Amino acid sequence: MQNPGLLKELIQSLCCLPGVGQKSAQRMAFHLLQRNRDGGRQLSRVLSQAMDNIGYCRDCRTLTEAEVCEVCANPQRDDAVLCIVESAADVWVIDQATSFKGKYFVLHGRLSPLDGMGPDQLGIDLLEQRLASGVIKEIILATNSTIEGQATAHFIGEIANKFHIRATRIAHGVPMGGELEFIDSGTLSHAFNDRREF
Amino acid sequence: MQNPGLLKELIQSLCCLPGVGQKSAQRMAFHLLQRNRDGGRQLSRVLSQAMDNIGYCRDCRTLTEAEVCEVCANPQRDDAVLCIVESAADVWVIDQATSFKGKYFVLHGRLSPLDGMGPDQLGIDLLEQRLASGVIKEIILATNSTIEGQATAHFIGEIANKFHIRATRIAHGVPMGGELEFIDSGTLSHAFNDRREF
Ligand SMILES: [Zn+2]
Ligand SMILES: [Zn+2]
Repeated sequence: MQNPGLLKELIQSLCCLPGVGQKSAQRMAFHLLQRNRDGGRQLSRVLSQAMDNIGYCRDCRTLTEAEVCEVCANPQRDDAVLCIVESAADVWVIDQATSFKGKYFVLHGRLSPLDGMGPDQLGIDLLEQRLASGVIKEIILATNSTIEGQATAHFIGEIANKFHIRATRIAHGVPMGGELEFIDSGTLSHAFNDRREF
Repeated sequence: MQNPGLLKELIQSLCCLPGVGQKSAQRMAFHLLQRNRDGGRQLSRVLSQAMDNIGYCRDCRTLTEAEVCEVCANPQRDDAVLCIVESAADVWVIDQATSFKGKYFVLHGRLSPLDGMGPDQLGIDLLEQRLASGVIKEIILATNSTIEGQATAHFIGEIANKFHIRATRIAHGVPMGGELEFIDSGTLSHAFNDRREF
């Protein structure tokens, strides 16, 4: 007789992945054990390496195992444009979806005093140092379009002003391909107010 | 500069999990790195233990790290009733959903000559040994209700006959709570032919 049993332990551990409940965890465990043990071993190895070795970029605070991340270290990318995002995942998403070739700064959150998220937690001092360096000509505020994300964008925009640096905000409106009847009213009203010449 | 980068490697490795595409893998990687490194480390540890140590039960062929699985080793369970299933996952599902207190036998597949799945692959010799032992009074054929699952049930039912052991098949029909208009016609026709006194 074993204790809880390795299989049960495996299923339980897989439940720590976001979006994975008991049922998918079972399916995953059986799939790996019956059809892809090498995949499971590889995942185990990479997971442990990643958890132990991935830290934060010295310059932009994104996730990386290097002292300076790939983007910051890339001399092909434009130092004059800095895109400010809430999370490291956003860097990933923007780099895949757009042709943006500037650099990033990751806040790891948004201003939210009630949750203890203030300028210190968001690395604003580091951001100010970079803005003070004179290299940056424009910051793109790509925080989320939530109330807190907007407030954070506003707060950082003010800092940019202080340094006479241009601050832009990514456009908000009806998603491409989105049908008007399925768009929430806040977005639709914003899209109307922010309309452009056609 | 690093090679592919640990973060990309992690995302790629997570894609080996069934039902996990590029996007969910990204979400998982960022979640673990930003919010649950201990969970990630724990998952890594259990994964590697499971891949290396989980084998097959000597008696029923289900997945276990022991020589004999928890169910087979449990003296409270009835040796006289043997439930035949296609996969180790089915053992799990049946044990959670029903009050079945007999034992199991796992085929790890179904008869499918074109895929090279014959009696040898399904452990039929081991099953025959168990049926020959005289302990088993009934086998419950719980293979899937696919054509191959039915053929497999039929094949094993014949063997049970040879040993004068009762063979039963789990009921098929309209799922509980299922609405008739959404049931496929094969199931509905089976449910009609298999109707009972009310
Ligand atoms: Zn960086
Ligand atoms: Zn067993």
